Amino acid sequence: MKGWFITLEGVEGVGKSTCIPHIASFLEERGKDVVTTREPGGTRVAEAIREMLLWSDAETLDPVAELLLHFASRRAHLVEVIEPAINRGKVVLCDRFTDATHAYQGGGSGISAAWIDTLSQIVHPKLEPDLTLLFDLAPEEGLKRIASHKADRYERESLAFLERVRNNYLERARASNRFVVIDASQSALEVRRQALAAVETHFGTRA
Amino acid sequence: MKGWFITLEGVEGVGKSTCIPHIASFLEERGKDVVTTREPGGTRVAEAIREMLLWSDAETLDPVAELLLHFASRRAHLVEVIEPAINRGKVVLCDRFTDATHAYQGGGSGISAAWIDTLSQIVHPKLEPDLTLLFDLAPEEGLKRIASHKADRYERESLAFLERVRNNYLERARASNRFVVIDASQSALEVRRQALAAVETHFGTRA
Repeated sequence: MKGWFITLEGVEGVGKSTCIPHIASFLEERGKDVVTTREPGGTRVAEAIREMLLWSDAETLDPVAELLLHFASRRAHLVEVIEPAINRGKVVLCDRFTDATHAYQGGGSGISAAWIDTLSQIVHPKLEPDLTLLFDLAPEEGLKRIASHKADRYERESLAFLERVRNNYLERARASNRFVVIDASQSALEVRRQALAAVETHFGTRA
Repeated sequence: MKGWFITLEGVEGVGKSTCIPHIASFLEERGKDVVTTREPGGTRVAEAIREMLLWSDAETLDPVAELLLHFASRRAHLVEVIEPAINRGKVVLCDRFTDATHAYQGGGSGISAAWIDTLSQIVHPKLEPDLTLLFDLAPEEGLKRIASHKADRYERESLAFLERVRNNYLERARASNRFVVIDASQSALEVRRQALAAVETHFGTRA
């Protein structure tokens, strides 16, 4: 039996990461074997790539090189973590996947969507998420929420950049019915309730 | 004035790297400003990627992830080193480039040539070498020559793998007239003489 692949997407500060353990518990209570992960997902190569991408000094990384590094990391994560779990019938909850590349490198940095689609075809020709929860929030609100901790390279991106990221996410959500958009401006409890309802509706899980 | 882009290709032990300074001197004596480089070419990101690719432990790197890492490294090297030099009218002598990806990841590891061409189009849409010197040698002969130093991951590849690499190189050389094939089984002096003659013929350089 093939498992399920659920991805969580959204700009910084939307609360998707804090939502993941609740979705995991929800599914486990319904008898599912759940793997929660996020890129780079603990593979050695992918961790080293993440390290490179987050170097906080002023070095400018060429956007195409950055794009290729994201997909190289994704490939290692996919081959070593995601696919084996799905093939064993597990539910994989993944904090960001290729939609994030479209949103950040495509919408944000202006990389061609056709290139990103081509790389997706090379890296995961047979895998698309079954369900993608898009946590939507105005970027200024998200930035306020994360202001308390040290921002990394991505989090320091300008508000205009984050607006483009958000719009790209919303456009993709309109174009495919694997997306459920969650209004992340609500209380954490309400956001969680909507996320669980989306999972329940999509997979028909019953307690 | 746009400069020239000369690449040197071949399997391990063919003597291309020792030939490079001679080609550089030859061109400098003829008034050219020469940059000699090789991937990763001293860029910080590319060096870190090289480090990853050469990890000598037994970890198996997925071939597609490896392919993407090579192109990410190439992109950084291209943007930071190769293109600026060519745009300033210099001659760039580069120890291996995309032909090596075709030969090693394509011919050797079985990655689709179409994928490699697609990545080349993304990473260097406007740049092909003006001249490629292919140093051709039977792999068993090359391996004998390098047996004296510690072999890295690539150099430990099997003879059958290296035969596929060599054949891929030779096929590419037959298909494009930017290649000159040099018989690297000859003496170092004769190999060098042929390499310099190829450069002179191609560019019409006169002393």
